[in-house]
Amino acid sequence: MKIIVIGANAAGAKAASKAKRMNPSAEITVVDRGSFISYGACGIPYYIGNMVHDEKELMKTPVGVVRTPEFFQKVKGVRVLTNTEATEIDRKTKKVAIRDKAGETSFLDYDKLVLTTGSSPVRPCLDGCGLPGVFTVKSIEEAVRLKESAQSGKKACVIGAGLIGLEVVEALAEQGLQVTVVELFGQILPGLLDPEMAALLEQHIRSKGVVTRSACCVSSIKGNGRVEKVVTDNGEFEADLVVLAVGAKPNVELAKAAGLAIGETGAILVDDHMRTSDPDIFAAGDCCETVNLVTGKKIYAPMGSSANKQGRVVGINAAGGDTTFAGVLGTAIVKVFDFSAGKTGLTETAARAAGYDVETLLSPAPDKAHFYSTSKPIALKMVADKTTGRLLGLQAVGAGAVDKRLDAAATALTFRATVDQIAQLDLAYAPPYSAAMDNLIVAADIMKNKLSGEAKGISPREVKAKLDNGDDFVFLDVRSPAEYETVRIPGAKLVPLGALREKMEGLPRDKEIIAFCKISLRGYEAQKILESGGFKNVRFMDGGILTWPYELEK
Amino acid sequence: MKIIVIGANAAGAKAASKAKRMNPSAEITVVDRGSFISYGACGIPYYIGNMVHDEKELMKTPVGVVRTPEFFQKVKGVRVLTNTEATEIDRKTKKVAIRDKAGETSFLDYDKLVLTTGSSPVRPCLDGCGLPGVFTVKSIEEAVRLKESAQSGKKACVIGAGLIGLEVVEALAEQGLQVTVVELFGQILPGLLDPEMAALLEQHIRSKGVVTRSACCVSSIKGNGRVEKVVTDNGEFEADLVVLAVGAKPNVELAKAAGLAIGETGAILVDDHMRTSDPDIFAAGDCCETVNLVTGKKIYAPMGSSANKQGRVVGINAAGGDTTFAGVLGTAIVKVFDFSAGKTGLTETAARAAGYDVETLLSPAPDKAHFYSTSKPIALKMVADKTTGRLLGLQAVGAGAVDKRLDAAATALTFRATVDQIAQLDLAYAPPYSAAMDNLIVAADIMKNKLSGEAKGISPREVKAKLDNGDDFVFLDVRSPAEYETVRIPGAKLVPLGALREKMEGLPRDKEIIAFCKISLRGYEAQKILESGGFKNVRFMDGGILTWPYELEK
Repeated sequence: MKIIVIGANAAGAKAASKAKRMNPSAEITVVDRGSFISYGACGIPYYIGNMVHDEKELMKTPVGVVRTPEFFQKVKGVRVLTNTEATEIDRKTKKVAIRDKAGETSFLDYDKLVLTTGSSPVRPCLDGCGLPGVFTVKSIEEAVRLKESAQSGKKACVIGAGLIGLEVVEALAEQGLQVTVVELFGQILPGLLDPEMAALLEQHIRSKGVVTRSACCVSSIKGNGRVEKVVTDNGEFEADLVVLAVGAKPNVELAKAAGLAIGETGAILVDDHMRTSDPDIFAAGDCCETVNLVTGKKIYAPMGSSANKQGRVVGINAAGGDTTFAGVLGTAIVKVFDFSAGKTGLTETAARAAGYDVETLLSPAPDKAHFYSTSKPIALKMVADKTTGRLLGLQAVGAGAVDKRLDAAATALTFRATVDQIAQLDLAYAPPYSAAMDNLIVAADIMKNKLSGEAKGISPREVKAKLDNGDDFVFLDVRSPAEYETVRIPGAKLVPLGALREKMEGLPRDKEIIAFCKISLRGYEAQKILESGGFKNVRFMDGGILTWPYELEK
Repeated sequence: MKIIVIGANAAGAKAASKAKRMNPSAEITVVDRGSFISYGACGIPYYIGNMVHDEKELMKTPVGVVRTPEFFQKVKGVRVLTNTEATEIDRKTKKVAIRDKAGETSFLDYDKLVLTTGSSPVRPCLDGCGLPGVFTVKSIEEAVRLKESAQSGKKACVIGAGLIGLEVVEALAEQGLQVTVVELFGQILPGLLDPEMAALLEQHIRSKGVVTRSACCVSSIKGNGRVEKVVTDNGEFEADLVVLAVGAKPNVELAKAAGLAIGETGAILVDDHMRTSDPDIFAAGDCCETVNLVTGKKIYAPMGSSANKQGRVVGINAAGGDTTFAGVLGTAIVKVFDFSAGKTGLTETAARAAGYDVETLLSPAPDKAHFYSTSKPIALKMVADKTTGRLLGLQAVGAGAVDKRLDAAATALTFRATVDQIAQLDLAYAPPYSAAMDNLIVAADIMKNKLSGEAKGISPREVKAKLDNGDDFVFLDVRSPAEYETVRIPGAKLVPLGALREKMEGLPRDKEIIAFCKISLRGYEAQKILESGGFKNVRFMDGGILTWPYELEK
């Protein structure tokens, strides 16, 4: 049995190794047009930031062995041909045409073929994109050149504030460059975070001296023989180097030319066995589309983590086994300076677009027991389906342990958990790890209170619109005078919660009252106290002052 | 409507606050025999270790307000009577007799009663337990005295190597005391970890200069007017102070005297509404038993996290609502020096005792991308049901992020996930958070390979027994010569994996071969290579050298 794998990176390397273990008598050949195989492309930003000193580190196994063709041959029993491009698939004769470094073409027979052709960075059609000093983030070769250019004191402009763009922002800033990041959409991490969560991360990025520009359209990159500046509809930015990080597109040319079906997302169409429209050809990783487990819709979500899982699935199936890949939740996370930000499932925006009747909340809190010295704040945004009480998504931003709340939420989403079920998860508690009520459980409890109508919240965005609109309502800060002295929201009136029962008679009964505190708990208590005093129109502002993404007085 | 809550700590404070929010017209009284309310008892080890300087920190809300009776009255609308002991419940007349500080008895009427009487540290019947210098870890008052006694240079003996015992070991050692910890069972953290996982933690604790003694029975505590030494069947240990941490027992006297049913675990029997055998009396927290969600059996598992969740449930039900508490997974975690250790669900020991046909594995790996500078090793032990492929439990030990793998596993256990489902979880991946294949997913993949018969593992314990027994087998180290030079297991033969295909003819075909490497992946590859070469009797040792808890040559 002959199996050919086209592409020797995450999914391809995994597929080949797994197929060989499944079927030791199979003859497995991997062809790759590059000279590096099985490298950790996700590690490139850390190589640029010099946390990883030598690019070979990215190609090592966890025990320090560099993954070379010799390594694959000796250890995995898999033949790898590097610097070899697959140029054509003849599905009738089941042959792949390959061209080696010298330009010689030859043919390989296959019984089963695996396409792991990956993705390429999108190169926008901009004047000046080809100038020296303009880079994308994908290949080791380009990363080496980018790292050489990234000298302290230089100016860099990163185009695109997505996951990779922001990782590169951190890497370059940590190397001492002056960094500007411009984003076409109206916020950083569009698609990944709702605006108010993105604003929390953007504040942090700016606090590190990085210039951020959202809703900013690049019109050209200019320079005389080498990049000098980026021209946008919102100013020009001097730049000694430019990084294009505006997304990835699947490498589907080979599949398309062979007549394989391409999905509505533009990536290779596969079924739940990762089989293409040809039963003898499989695909995995960044070149193919997958299913969003929350919506059941096809999505293109290239991720190294999915590529590895899919590689295993196609390895088994190509070798004659029978297994499936369920789909993804669109989980993603990024570290930018001291903050982590990520999501799993649907954002509010995506959930509304998908037609759900949603309830949301913001819940900021320390990530560990508040008295534990290394505890750090994180803010959660939870999105649930009003009709069923089912969790639809979680976003998390902050200096604390964002990843573990996302992982628990991703697991809950996989099993279509309701917020009732999440509120009772028996998570690992001790003061160095969480409060007695973990952030995720607190959020689920608030969501339960909201869904039952007991808690009446309003988002900071809606409050801001009311303020900007000049609406007549009481914006009630129920924190302590000391907290008020330190920082406050313009336009809010202070009545500390402890005094509210006594002072409520001074509040107008005919106006809406919106209460808030630092996080939202005392704001919610204020709602309940005022309601017990007969007030009919009281809400609390989600997340309190900690997730207020607008102006503050200090 | 009158609600009385007996006990003002985690569950009681939560129940009272929640009941008041649910039913603002209810008159709620909390009585507590102590003078501190709603304190974070779990924080006491961190107070002793001086991470928390002032005991009042433990009684503060996350925004820094001390929870006093005045705070509860003003903010929560709940009356709290401290230094007041509930001495009797008269269920016929629905009255609780209370005795105040001055010794005066009075009576409170109730419509609904909530018992949150908590637990007390077990005080073993030992000579000398009452000597000055012998402490338990529960009350603030005793913690203050313990902290005063814990002066650098003194000798401390901690009796009991459970969660609290080990937290106190760290606290005292960090304060500069010479610490010995003695444990009756044959390992530290009995019940929480299987022996080989406990051994990994014990090695770390010893590396910090702490003396550990397992299978060590204390016969008496001796001293002349003050503690001087602990006498055991395995030596005497000088001690300027002794901490008893041999477990907690539920405070059920009041419930028992009132004729309420006590469960088989010795704690108050409750139904899924946390209702006792009297429909007007609820119980929550450390005084009552609950259900193990994996086995469906009743267990006594006092935890601050469960107490808070149960407090919410009884608050709602006592106020006239209708909600349930599902049960627990026995999840627990502890930080000891630079290591974290914990479990969720069943250990192998517990799973076998419960009658499951189990498969297990050990999987050590870095907790982040191996090239990421702050990545640290963790070891997972996964336990699954052979029949159904269902996850039964996860243990995790190491310097890295143990808690997040436990939380994801706990969530998966809640939904009775199979290892197939766990292997495809879409967890949050970027190099600062995990490898592309998260540790939990790698473990699930190995488990799948084991359950399918593709991977044939043997535990380090079984290998050790074979070595000790003088069994005739080939113990094959397939690491590199450089790794072998650094550290090796006595009795193993080196054949690096890369050379195995060439050198396999030198290996005996009539003997069992047990291969291993650093973690287990190359050991597994060796199994597959040898099998493809016709060898019939090959296994790999789970977890490799990293989870070998016995002697190593360096």
